[in-house]
This record gives sequence, structure tokens and C-alpha cells, in this order.
Amino acid sequence: LRATAQRDRIRGIAAELFAAKGYNGVGVAELGDAAGLGRGALYHHIGSKEDLLYEIASRYMVELIRGGQEIAASTPEPVERVMALGSHLMSTIVANLAEMTVCFREVNALTGHHHKTVSKYHSDYQKLWEDVIALGVARGVFRPVDRVTIKGLLGMYFYSFLWLRKDGYHSPEKIGKIFGDIVVRSLAA
Amino acid sequence: LRATAQRDRIRGIAAELFAAKGYNGVGVAELGDAAGLGRGALYHHIGSKEDLLYEIASRYMVELIRGGQEIAASTPEPVERVMALGSHLMSTIVANLAEMTVCFREVNALTGHHHKTVSKYHSDYQKLWEDVIALGVARGVFRPVDRVTIKGLLGMYFYSFLWLRKDGYHSPEKIGKIFGDIVVRSLAA
Repeated sequence: LRATAQRDRIRGIAAELFAAKGYNGVGVAELGDAAGLGRGALYHHIGSKEDLLYEIASRYMVELIRGGQEIAASTPEPVERVMALGSHLMSTIVANLAEMTVCFREVNALTGHHHKTVSKYHSDYQKLWEDVIALGVARGVFRPVDRVTIKGLLGMYFYSFLWLRKDGYHSPEKIGKIFGDIVVRSLAA
Repeated sequence: LRATAQRDRIRGIAAELFAAKGYNGVGVAELGDAAGLGRGALYHHIGSKEDLLYEIASRYMVELIRGGQEIAASTPEPVERVMALGSHLMSTIVANLAEMTVCFREVNALTGHHHKTVSKYHSDYQKLWEDVIALGVARGVFRPVDRVTIKGLLGMYFYSFLWLRKDGYHSPEKIGKIFGDIVVRSLAA
């Protein structure tokens, strides 16, 4: 249990550093200094720097997917589900801004199996939106759209990591509602 | 003139490296190696690494603003202007993918006067979209929207640097049309 807590702590520190300076801009020595650990202790806890990036990026995608799946299961009406998915996405981004910044921006710094898995998570998450749109099309409330439309609409949410502030003018709920409204209007049949 | 050509060449190489590895992930030694120049010659041409980032980020924002202003002057009809601004934005991003990636992602690596100027360019560009929306509202074709709506819609375009490929499935023109359509539908009065 103490090892898990230590790992969580290191992951949080790493996410802040990666978000601020970019993954390639942070060395292992800097990570160790920030965590108050020597090189050996750091490697003992995290494996490698890429393992750490992988854990940050995959953990929050898994959370997004799990939350999204719960919403999909409990919200059969397509417009309501779009609004709920959007609010969940927005509040997850705001609550974990450093982690989500790393998660969106640094996917391509991952290699091999790590890259494949996180890319798969991104597709799985996108699939939740493809499904609700397909459902809305079947029910006659949404128009059929190209996949690039979904990429664009998700990009609207994702890009917010670059301008959102936790103490910003609007609450995440309010931004989620405004963005959900854009999605629903733009998809209306 | 030869100095200008050399500078342009270094700027292109730097944009590719910054886009691939992040600004903080690229050292001056690596820049010099990639450009085939020693430290002294490199500094002679570029000033500092931050000067180089500033030149990349400001040059393409200035291009975006200038092009956008021409479109605004020549396209009085709001829906048409939204479509034209969107196409221009999309084709500028695709044609200069490395530079625009740096431009969107690395603004916060700039300091002092550099940061202030590039932030101002970003607001100036956003202003072109605020103006066309205000015009559409005045003409009764668009609904009044919150500023965060505009941030979201621009984010849809901007985020594309993370998934666009020059040899992608859709042409930039097609993506510009699809995104313009989303904007117009979501703004419709």
C-alpha cells in the first residue's frame, strides 16, 4: 500500500512537470529532485520515464471510458447522453488538468505496446460518441456525419486543456453545457 | 538576402524539431547539429532559442490574421465569411503543420514581451471570428453566443494539429467545409 501511495505521488508530480515543460523537456534527474528521490529509488518505483507517461495517459483514458460507458448504459436518450458525455469529459479535464494535458498532447511520445494501447483507448473513447450519434441518427434526431465531424467536436473539448484554468470565469459544468449545446445543434437532423 | 534564406532554413528545421519533441525537449546543440552549424554560427543567425520560437509562433499568427482580415474585407455575408475563415485556417494549418503545432502548443514557453505579443496575436485572430459572429447576430442569422463558444469552435480547428496528416483521408478543403458547416449549424439563430 505504501508503494502504491508513493507511485501515485510520483505520478502526480510527473504529470505537473510533463504538462508544464513537455515530456521530452523533463529529465529523470529533474523528476527525482521534484519527488525528493535518488535515481535508484525513482527507478524502483516507476520503472522508466516512459512507464510513468504510459501510466498517466492510460489511467485517465480508462477513467474517461469507464465513466462514458456508465453514462451510455444509463442514458438511452441521445441528446441527453451527448450532454452527459460532454459534461463528464469537461469535468474530468478540469479536475485533472495536468494529467489530461499529458494524456492528449504526449500520446506520440509513447512507443510500441504503450503507444498501441493508449491509441486504442482514444479510439474506444471516440467510439462512445460514434455510438450515441449513430443512435441519434437511427432515431431521426441527428443527421449522419463524417468521422471527421466527431474528431472536430471532440477536439473542441480536448483543446480546452490549452486555455482552461481551474479558477476560470465559467465553471466546468457551464462550459460542458455550452459545448454540449454546440454539439447537439450541429448534429440536429 | 543570404542571411534571410539561412534564417528561414533554420526556422523550418527548428519548427520540425519543436513539433516532434516539444520546445523544451530540443537543445541548442541538437538544433545546431540538425542545421549543420556550430553554436556560434547558430546564435549569430537566430539570437536565442526563444527568439526562434517567437519568430515561428508570430510569423504564422501574422499570416493567419492578415489572411483573415482580407477575407473579412472581401466577404460581407456572415455565413460565407465563416466558411471562408474556416477554410483559410484549415489550409494554413495543413500547409504549415509543424509551425502551427508550435504556434498553438508552445505559446506558454514564451516569456515577457514575446509572450505578450503572441498572446495578443491569438486574441486578434479570435477577434476576426467574434466580429463575424456579431455581424451574423446583427443580421439575424446567428444566435448571440458566449465567448467560450468561440474558444470551443476555434479549438475544434486548432486541435487538428494533433491528428491531421498531410496525406490524410480528407483534403484540407473538405475538412474546412465540414468544420465550417458545424460552426454555421451551431450558430444558427
